[in-house]
Amino acid sequence: MREVLAAAPVGNDAYREDEAVRSLEDRVAELFGMDSAMFLPTGTMANLVAVSVLCPRGGEVLADQESYVLASGLGGLATVAGLQSRTIHAVRGALDAAAVRAALRPAGWGVLPTSALIVENTHARSGGAVVPLPVLAELSLLAREHGIGLHCDGARIWHAAVATGTSLKAYGALFDTLTVSVSKGLGAPVGALMLGDAERVERARQVRKQLGGGWRGAGVLAAAAEFAVLNNVARLREDHDKAAAIATRLGRQPMINAPVETNIVLVRVRDSVAVHRACARQGVGVFRLAPDLIRIVTHRDVSMERCLEAAEVIAAAIAQ
Amino acid sequence: MREVLAAAPVGNDAYREDEAVRSLEDRVAELFGMDSAMFLPTGTMANLVAVSVLCPRGGEVLADQESYVLASGLGGLATVAGLQSRTIHAVRGALDAAAVRAALRPAGWGVLPTSALIVENTHARSGGAVVPLPVLAELSLLAREHGIGLHCDGARIWHAAVATGTSLKAYGALFDTLTVSVSKGLGAPVGALMLGDAERVERARQVRKQLGGGWRGAGVLAAAAEFAVLNNVARLREDHDKAAAIATRLGRQPMINAPVETNIVLVRVRDSVAVHRACARQGVGVFRLAPDLIRIVTHRDVSMERCLEAAEVIAAAIAQ
Amino acid sequence: MREVLAAAPVGNDAYREDEAVRSLEDRVAELFGMDSAMFLPTGTMANLVAVSVLCPRGGEVLADQESYVLASGLGGLATVAGLQSRTIHAVRGALDAAAVRAALRPAGWGVLPTSALIVENTHARSGGAVVPLPVLAELSLLAREHGIGLHCDGARIWHAAVATGTSLKAYGALFDTLTVSVSKGLGAPVGALMLGDAERVERARQVRKQLGGGWRGAGVLAAAAEFAVLNNVARLREDHDKAAAIATRLGRQPMINAPVETNIVLVRVRDSVAVHRACARQGVGVFRLAPDLIRIVTHRDVSMERCLEAAEVIAAAIAQ
Amino acid sequence: MREVLAAAPVGNDAYREDEAVRSLEDRVAELFGMDSAMFLPTGTMANLVAVSVLCPRGGEVLADQESYVLASGLGGLATVAGLQSRTIHAVRGALDAAAVRAALRPAGWGVLPTSALIVENTHARSGGAVVPLPVLAELSLLAREHGIGLHCDGARIWHAAVATGTSLKAYGALFDTLTVSVSKGLGAPVGALMLGDAERVERARQVRKQLGGGWRGAGVLAAAAEFAVLNNVARLREDHDKAAAIATRLGRQPMINAPVETNIVLVRVRDSVAVHRACARQGVGVFRLAPDLIRIVTHRDVSMERCLEAAEVIAAAIAQ
Repeated sequence: MREVLAAAPVGNDAYREDEAVRSLEDRVAELFGMDSAMFLPTGTMANLVAVSVLCPRGGEVLADQESYVLASGLGGLATVAGLQSRTIHAVRGALDAAAVRAALRPAGWGVLPTSALIVENTHARSGGAVVPLPVLAELSLLAREHGIGLHCDGARIWHAAVATGTSLKAYGALFDTLTVSVSKGLGAPVGALMLGDAERVERARQVRKQLGGGWRGAGVLAAAAEFAVLNNVARLREDHDKAAAIATRLGRQPMINAPVETNIVLVRVRDSVAVHRACARQGVGVFRLAPDLIRIVTHRDVSMERCLEAAEVIAAAIAQ
Repeated sequence: MREVLAAAPVGNDAYREDEAVRSLEDRVAELFGMDSAMFLPTGTMANLVAVSVLCPRGGEVLADQESYVLASGLGGLATVAGLQSRTIHAVRGALDAAAVRAALRPAGWGVLPTSALIVENTHARSGGAVVPLPVLAELSLLAREHGIGLHCDGARIWHAAVATGTSLKAYGALFDTLTVSVSKGLGAPVGALMLGDAERVERARQVRKQLGGGWRGAGVLAAAAEFAVLNNVARLREDHDKAAAIATRLGRQPMINAPVETNIVLVRVRDSVAVHRACARQGVGVFRLAPDLIRIVTHRDVSMERCLEAAEVIAAAIAQ
Repeated sequence: MREVLAAAPVGNDAYREDEAVRSLEDRVAELFGMDSAMFLPTGTMANLVAVSVLCPRGGEVLADQESYVLASGLGGLATVAGLQSRTIHAVRGALDAAAVRAALRPAGWGVLPTSALIVENTHARSGGAVVPLPVLAELSLLAREHGIGLHCDGARIWHAAVATGTSLKAYGALFDTLTVSVSKGLGAPVGALMLGDAERVERARQVRKQLGGGWRGAGVLAAAAEFAVLNNVARLREDHDKAAAIATRLGRQPMINAPVETNIVLVRVRDSVAVHRACARQGVGVFRLAPDLIRIVTHRDVSMERCLEAAEVIAAAIAQ
Repeated sequence: MREVLAAAPVGNDAYREDEAVRSLEDRVAELFGMDSAMFLPTGTMANLVAVSVLCPRGGEVLADQESYVLASGLGGLATVAGLQSRTIHAVRGALDAAAVRAALRPAGWGVLPTSALIVENTHARSGGAVVPLPVLAELSLLAREHGIGLHCDGARIWHAAVATGTSLKAYGALFDTLTVSVSKGLGAPVGALMLGDAERVERARQVRKQLGGGWRGAGVLAAAAEFAVLNNVARLREDHDKAAAIATRLGRQPMINAPVETNIVLVRVRDSVAVHRACARQGVGVFRLAPDLIRIVTHRDVSMERCLEAAEVIAAAIAQ
């Protein structure tokens, strides 16, 4: 679809837009100390494209049982990327290196060899849990030792960096491919990036086009994303504080993600549908994660004061 | 990823955004007199999703040899939608109904039966040619008679409507699924829509998510798209006039898309790379379509006056 | 390719052959008390076809980490059937029902719902371990309760029946789809069958053809298979006895599949390549399963006496 | 599944069987002067595997509109091999080189480049028509000139060789990959071979396993196939003569495949179902190819005398 812009008889909007995208991609690659980056519509697509170029079709990936990529991609890992998965037990997203080692299958013994390992940081279904850096470092060593790839679904990696004071470059050094979102905590309207070495990102552009993610006119979105990346990371700490405050208020409930490490609070409830309805009536949004589980996510558009008010509403709804 | 917004403890940005998307989808469905519509990142994805829900995987589609969906999707029709294709000769995008009839394979005779027919209007690789309404109507009857689906890649269908005075509803009545773009001639930054009956669009939402097209935060893009759909269709006639003017100026060249019907001019040249470079030096963008073919597309951001200036630049570049 | 035979101007080999295949299929379906059966080239294809018709593409299956279908199909579950997998810890192939229950994902909560459960009996990588009938019965109840499918990779189910005295019908009653092999212990040269209800088997014929498994001229193979099914099941007990005898002779080794329940003996060794080579020199075949693991399989063509001789050779090779 | 045989404690059936397969594969490769060959269950799978290793997934192939691989594989070319197809008009299987040249898309111009060309010889749906050697040679040159692959579906190539006196090596020299069947005219019960250079055949073994075509115990089938290849090719001439005799007898009908070049006769009829039924009552098998088309195939098990009797039966059935 490049022809619309390329064909502008006079003017060069296309180039300016491309510049905005290129600027974002270069900036994010540099922040993580990685070779190259690519902007695309969603984190789901970013993960799909990343593992597609990291693992040959027909390969096997290991991931934790509760990983977003297995739970929420509606099967795209298999149907689109053609990758088989075995799942490893993990505590709050932290895969046990010994369990991974035991599960690895070498090439050449008549069985499907393992191509890559997938980690997620922070880990969504554990309530935004931070996977400790030493765990990631050990998995990275393990992957290199066995010649397999390591992908990080880092949609919320900004939160992990802020919560632990880890630099983005320290994370970037560990992974072969990494995906980050700009549309969740960072507050840009739409978009995600996939990072990796130049050759992989180049191939990823083909996969993106094939999936229908080759948007153009994305300059305005890229500009918003770059603004968010430059200005909205440090302030995530405020969202973490707000989540902690909500958790404290709700603390008498049997919460499953103690401690609250970032901006997500999970609460076990008797009836998530009823709680959701009661909260909505008061203008408070909670997400029904399962019949007995709700999720609360804090973000920049809601002040600490209103978060505390919301906590009261939620507490009352749960108590009913 | 809806949880980020849904979880806003106070406030309901998510709902407002959803409203913008829903408003756009309802508006466009209504414009074409079709049941339902869905907003997604690109026309390529819209086509992919549409044919995926129109044809069962493993089916066969008939399309013209030069169709965008076969030429430019980088194979997604096969790799993602799992559809086999046979190609029908077409003149400027107008499939010959007799040829289609001869190619159709009925179910139950041990061969792969034909599932759907794909048309494209206007037809990009013929230089924005309009497929005549009677041709489309005959193909629609043929498809219904044989119980197969009819999909229209209508990325540029707005141009066909304006150029011929055909109503959007007249087009919408002919197709089982239709895709339209808002980011080309209409001037919205990003996006396309897929239209069809309610059941197909509902299933399409699943396919979209699987491909990683389930963007959220798309409200601002939807608002821009709805503005474009409401305000920028009628004025496409000006772009057609500009294209005609450029074609007239270049008319001594052996152009392949005479007459110029919409906003695209194709020109056969000796060396498209050289012409592209010479034009770019003067700030004029042309698209290299093939080693001996360039494409010029007019749009709202370039006035008639500047188009005529551009035509001089292009004419000089060709003459070199 | 049916035309070659169908077109025989006089004669009806095709029909006779079809009869042999039909007779085998009906016989095996009846043995297991299941609706319908289909003959195809390999157990790998039988499993692939069975799960393809049991689970919609893009669904999720649960299977044990060491299952044959995940380990040895070279990724076909994902690339061909489009199914995602999560793995459940199992002891000797016996999936823990509580673990399965915890892993199940219901439809309608924004995550990929579980479509089916896969069990394997006997379990190859545990050395031909029999999955206890009560375990299978509990998994069957669980699957029905949650509305998901249950597939059994029963390539070696004949061994389980003989080893435990369980009737084939008792097994057949538990599964939605079942695959059995006739070419392993039963001694037919080639082939496997996929069983299920009539509608699934009918659809499976289409998938088989698509994968290139729609052989014809299979009558002679079907006749051999039917002979094997009718005559070679009860005598599997002799193979089990031979395996037990070999295991007893090797018993001082740290064997991993104690007790030996059927016809497979697994032995941990220092260097499986060296052991394989030393045995081969003496005309004894052992299979290298991993760098430190060998597999010995007994079968009808080798007498008890020679098995004991072979055990001596293997013992000496291990001791080196 | 190799373990069953490999594990034979004493004896080496596996190796003898492997020898039979290897002997067949080497023999057929040598007959066509090609590097390497692989034995598998069906011609459909052979074609699927061959194009999978010839063309990267997501590529485009050109084939004639009536090719077996597009008509009869139930979509496997797209769903399994992930290949998109455009179709070229052909007369009796002979693709027009100029039409191919016009359809070829070069890499690097933003469109899906063409990966391979597929020819079929003899051409089934044209009634066993022989594609002339000069046509194949020109397509081979064209493919090499443009750096794309050339695959021949040669299920019935034996017939072409016998009918024209062309050597198998002359055919083998033209193609990158070739598939041949041993189960049709040659009379072996089951099987086909895929030929190509050593590297492609090696990769093809992986694809075969993934599709569930990695049969073992195929030694007896390979032996039958090798016998057929060595003994039954020259005598195909008799089948051609029988077909010619039948065609002559039916000649007053408007046959569509004049002249009958090999062992297939196609006859246009008013009602193929009625003709099929009337013939079957007299013990004569004809294949219903379409509502108004029947196919008659001659083969070794029916003598010339009985073919002439069958022709009378068919003639009477048509005349009704």
